[in-house]
Amino acid sequence: MTKPRARDVGIPFEGKTGTYNAITDVPGVTVGYATVIEGDSARTGVTVIHPRGQKNHDPVFAAWFPFNGNGEMTGSAWVDEGGFLEGPIGITNTHSVGVVRDTIIKWQVEQDSIFQGWSCPLVTETADGWLNDINGFFVRPEHVLEALNSAESGPIAEGNVGGGTGMLCYEFKGGTGTSSRKLPEKLGGWTVGAFAQTNFGRRYQLTIAGVPVGGHLKENTLWTSGENPFRQDDGSLIVVIATDAPLLPHQLKRLAKRASLGMARTGSLGGNGSGDIFLAFSTANPGAARGNDKGLASLQALSNNYIDPLLIASAYATEEAIINSMIAGEDMIGYKGISVKALPQDKLGAIMRQYSRA
Amino acid sequence: MTKPRARDVGIPFEGKTGTYNAITDVPGVTVGYATVIEGDSARTGVTVIHPRGQKNHDPVFAAWFPFNGNGEMTGSAWVDEGGFLEGPIGITNTHSVGVVRDTIIKWQVEQDSIFQGWSCPLVTETADGWLNDINGFFVRPEHVLEALNSAESGPIAEGNVGGGTGMLCYEFKGGTGTSSRKLPEKLGGWTVGAFAQTNFGRRYQLTIAGVPVGGHLKENTLWTSGENPFRQDDGSLIVVIATDAPLLPHQLKRLAKRASLGMARTGSLGGNGSGDIFLAFSTANPGAARGNDKGLASLQALSNNYIDPLLIASAYATEEAIINSMIAGEDMIGYKGISVKALPQDKLGAIMRQYSRA
Amino acid sequence: MTKPRARDVGIPFEGKTGTYNAITDVPGVTVGYATVIEGDSARTGVTVIHPRGQKNHDPVFAAWFPFNGNGEMTGSAWVDEGGFLEGPIGITNTHSVGVVRDTIIKWQVEQDSIFQGWSCPLVTETADGWLNDINGFFVRPEHVLEALNSAESGPIAEGNVGGGTGMLCYEFKGGTGTSSRKLPEKLGGWTVGAFAQTNFGRRYQLTIAGVPVGGHLKENTLWTSGENPFRQDDGSLIVVIATDAPLLPHQLKRLAKRASLGMARTGSLGGNGSGDIFLAFSTANPGAARGNDKGLASLQALSNNYIDPLLIASAYATEEAIINSMIAGEDMIGYKGISVKALPQDKLGAIMRQYSRA
Amino acid sequence: MTKPRARDVGIPFEGKTGTYNAITDVPGVTVGYATVIEGDSARTGVTVIHPRGQKNHDPVFAAWFPFNGNGEMTGSAWVDEGGFLEGPIGITNTHSVGVVRDTIIKWQVEQDSIFQGWSCPLVTETADGWLNDINGFFVRPEHVLEALNSAESGPIAEGNVGGGTGMLCYEFKGGTGTSSRKLPEKLGGWTVGAFAQTNFGRRYQLTIAGVPVGGHLKENTLWTSGENPFRQDDGSLIVVIATDAPLLPHQLKRLAKRASLGMARTGSLGGNGSGDIFLAFSTANPGAARGNDKGLASLQALSNNYIDPLLIASAYATEEAIINSMIAGEDMIGYKGISVKALPQDKLGAIMRQYSRA
Repeated sequence: MTKPRARDVGIPFEGKTGTYNAITDVPGVTVGYATVIEGDSARTGVTVIHPRGQKNHDPVFAAWFPFNGNGEMTGSAWVDEGGFLEGPIGITNTHSVGVVRDTIIKWQVEQDSIFQGWSCPLVTETADGWLNDINGFFVRPEHVLEALNSAESGPIAEGNVGGGTGMLCYEFKGGTGTSSRKLPEKLGGWTVGAFAQTNFGRRYQLTIAGVPVGGHLKENTLWTSGENPFRQDDGSLIVVIATDAPLLPHQLKRLAKRASLGMARTGSLGGNGSGDIFLAFSTANPGAARGNDKGLASLQALSNNYIDPLLIASAYATEEAIINSMIAGEDMIGYKGISVKALPQDKLGAIMRQYSRA
Repeated sequence: MTKPRARDVGIPFEGKTGTYNAITDVPGVTVGYATVIEGDSARTGVTVIHPRGQKNHDPVFAAWFPFNGNGEMTGSAWVDEGGFLEGPIGITNTHSVGVVRDTIIKWQVEQDSIFQGWSCPLVTETADGWLNDINGFFVRPEHVLEALNSAESGPIAEGNVGGGTGMLCYEFKGGTGTSSRKLPEKLGGWTVGAFAQTNFGRRYQLTIAGVPVGGHLKENTLWTSGENPFRQDDGSLIVVIATDAPLLPHQLKRLAKRASLGMARTGSLGGNGSGDIFLAFSTANPGAARGNDKGLASLQALSNNYIDPLLIASAYATEEAIINSMIAGEDMIGYKGISVKALPQDKLGAIMRQYSRA
Repeated sequence: MTKPRARDVGIPFEGKTGTYNAITDVPGVTVGYATVIEGDSARTGVTVIHPRGQKNHDPVFAAWFPFNGNGEMTGSAWVDEGGFLEGPIGITNTHSVGVVRDTIIKWQVEQDSIFQGWSCPLVTETADGWLNDINGFFVRPEHVLEALNSAESGPIAEGNVGGGTGMLCYEFKGGTGTSSRKLPEKLGGWTVGAFAQTNFGRRYQLTIAGVPVGGHLKENTLWTSGENPFRQDDGSLIVVIATDAPLLPHQLKRLAKRASLGMARTGSLGGNGSGDIFLAFSTANPGAARGNDKGLASLQALSNNYIDPLLIASAYATEEAIINSMIAGEDMIGYKGISVKALPQDKLGAIMRQYSRA
Repeated sequence: MTKPRARDVGIPFEGKTGTYNAITDVPGVTVGYATVIEGDSARTGVTVIHPRGQKNHDPVFAAWFPFNGNGEMTGSAWVDEGGFLEGPIGITNTHSVGVVRDTIIKWQVEQDSIFQGWSCPLVTETADGWLNDINGFFVRPEHVLEALNSAESGPIAEGNVGGGTGMLCYEFKGGTGTSSRKLPEKLGGWTVGAFAQTNFGRRYQLTIAGVPVGGHLKENTLWTSGENPFRQDDGSLIVVIATDAPLLPHQLKRLAKRASLGMARTGSLGGNGSGDIFLAFSTANPGAARGNDKGLASLQALSNNYIDPLLIASAYATEEAIINSMIAGEDMIGYKGISVKALPQDKLGAIMRQYSRA
């Protein structure tokens, strides 16, 4: 993360970030990548998020929210029913979800970390079928293991890495982005982190800090030229929200829902083709899944009356994670020679100033 | 409850009941009725369930499940979102839900028990439009207050009382029924109570302890004569499940879902017209809604691995509450002279013996 | 509607409106109000929307979406299950939902318009407990009948009228607003209308056309002074989306979901206390609920591949309806002398110009 | 299907079946299997259901219902959102879902049958971890292709075949079962088929045609000996419901829900560990997904007032499909020498007669 990030280039965001302005600011969370760039056609990869790090397999409370379910999040049925996420999260391209899923199980078998006797891992996706030959099935088990085993805390890479390698965002290069919020002590002092794999949006929609940026950047669009505000959208947005606040599953669903507000703050209108699917988990309450020898667990939970700062932080961190993915994205030429450009930071700055927002 | 109940007449059910075989076996729960029988046309009423009794307004964790949402359960949106039920439960006829709802608010204002500053009470219903002139709007505020203020623990009335006064079940007289299960200590020792307002089912479907009773009791049917297994169904079933087990909202939803299995065990096939809507709450974890001065609450919760006995108890207690409502139901003549008969216990006994089930 | 509206004062919005820029641009839709302003304490009312006008009781396909279910929408269970809305929509204050609901049934009985033999009307609310004495229960049956019977097509009132009479929005006066979009013929030519009862948001959040207006208008706030981006939110937002496009219930749910994006475009972050609940219906496919003598109905439906313009129109029309409610809102003094100011249009213009957005 | 089926051995069921008493009675539906029995450890396989046969890739209206979501059904998010199932259904063991999913995509690429440009296939599972070494990952792409390409209409195999090869049901051998109902013309004449992969239930729960069979068959149990009615349950039940009735997605969800009633009729109480997940689709309305050149499709739909026979048929066919899976199941010795017995038909007959039900 030596590259500049959205705040570094002067984009104003609300709220105070954590140390790394990353999902890894939530203690315990680690993120690993395998980036698969091979020859002319392979522009893809795998991302893994371990809620408690790769050595701690204690399930976490979790919930999902499919704002627009045109996509896949395996494992979500059990998260919804049982309230726990029992292993790592995999994020890849749409057509490689299966290999990532089965390989996570194999890894769990090796780690002896399967909680119930069987495993339904959580794997989600966006479609990189423009820059990557998505039917090349380039993600292989060794890539999944690489991502699982290389996960780290601290600063993490953004842009053209991991599952986000070949993704687009508002017709610029997108991919991988992250952000966090650290609440003041009087509001609980909790940390909320967001991790986004971005592959959505039409150029004319792009909004940064309220500024209609997309309307001024009509070059190098892939589908739209800005004049048609109702043009078809596709692509997808995956957001993972992590927090150390002691939230119960039904409360985490509320955090996941706020990711849709964060998405809206960047201009998306939620197109039919976009699988906008969000997950939230809490690292609080270790041991809750198992309980004591009578199955009883002592928990902490937060009153709904105190949850607003966390809801807000979820929206803010999602917004910034999306923009970070675009600031970090770099020009890429891929499958069939398609070229996708990064968001031009110089022009962006000029537009922001034009609207008195930099 | 000096009338015989289903177990008293020899119907076999699984599992051990609590002291009263009633939802009031869950400590704190109280139930109140107002029965409105006036002239030729009014055969209706109101039932109120106070999760912690009428003097304790501390919210309880709760969840609902609409198996077939052809009915009303006001207040369910906030139960679903926030995880808490913040006041009493009202059950009445379909066209009196509004007056019950608004009167509960007035009562809450008097009690100074509104939790958030506004109130969206939980009121649910079944339609008594055969025995009662449902468009007579006979339920008045004083009836609601009577039910609210008269609620009691211990043994409670069944059959033609409260909201269940004018209801039918499998084309016999139905109405109000309750049951409970007390788990053995080695399975946690928890109590699960079910309360049913029954107004559903077609005669040919009626099944008691696995015996196809309805096929043998073709007299005095209202719509079907038993020969048509696909005849239209309407009516509704409301079930409220209470437990002292420390379950979280997403787990209570699982208990509510099992009420549909209890319903199925009595033969219903879930007709289009039947509003089969279920609520579950837990009296454990007092103070969870408010938390301490930082909004933090210390809770207990039960591992999903230990929840099976509670799921099973929910299905069993629902089944028995439904049959209890029929055993307690008494012949009634109502609106426009319509006559509905009680389940004939002598014939029932003979049929059960014929199938070696008594 | 001789008052200026948001477009009239120079606020830029995307897309072309219908004739009246109102939900009534969808043919058949009528809207009625009863405004209850009495003495020092009553600042409330009722709004009614008839999907096909008050003389046509043919059910419409519909769906709801509770973005944040801290509120009430009676009747939603059957909309969800059966896919139809079978009568008018009532919108009022939180504590008057019951009287509106029961009175709608009485009106339906008189009209002989009850579809199934019983009725579970759709009534929803926001809380006007600042300007109105919400526990005064000022809405009476005659007000409901007034709103039911006075409904009109064409231009409709906005601001301090009907259910929105005593409502606030971003700590300014809110209430009632509407907007519409008429799609170009090549995108189907459909109309999408939005109707909003606005009672949500914190001042610092207020965003108009991307401009952080709230940060510049710190006077006359009710709770916040702008400096705390994590301050508690409450209030509520009800949005009703109407369209003449032939959408099926699961597609209408998608339109309802986009209202949350429209809300986000005005700055809200979806606070815990805000019942943000959205309904969408389609006036296409008359007769679908009943079918022919075998129950079969011939329908038209729109491919998901052509739905994007409708999703986008739903978000845009919601955004504009909210802002319209604020432009139309007028200063009000209410219960206990509380004074709420309208959004100052002169200052608004200056701020918009400062950000090059007017 | 030369083996006797449940009706052949005298078990009474309600309603008239289709020609083959199989899901393939719904015109167009084909079913294919690959059975993987190798050495001492592999007792598994793959089942494929093509809604319109393997040569017709036109999407079908569909919906899912997770009664107890402790399992996997990939692709369900888009079914839920978009209302269509766009390809074949795969059913396998829990740890092979990934390979089945990705291989279906490869097959779709070869068939040029991907509808949206990307594919999220629907693959579901039950866990065969007793008879099969589930961590052997024995299902390979060639098995998936075998099942995809060998699918047939007409009579189909039951018992130890395909995905059901190594499954258990009520602690007897379970696996694969099917059934159908053909409605009388006056009730629409529609066909409803059910296909079940059965791997659930505790012995004491087993109920056949209302008879408490499990209580009399205490030999060869795997976990329970009948005395403990609250013993932990796991395993899973997958049911696919097909119909030619013109139902819309929200109506198909109602059919899927009735599979839980069919399950209850066989005695299950819905244990925590059981992934009881149901899907329903309709082969009516070809071309609905695409529409004409304006995206408009002309559909037929059935009024909710006529849906009861279909709801009932769904419950009945599910019940019979489950029992058929047990009648067809044969003794199997598998991984680590574990032996599972088939339901003993001679003893079953005696018990049924004892309860006057044969």
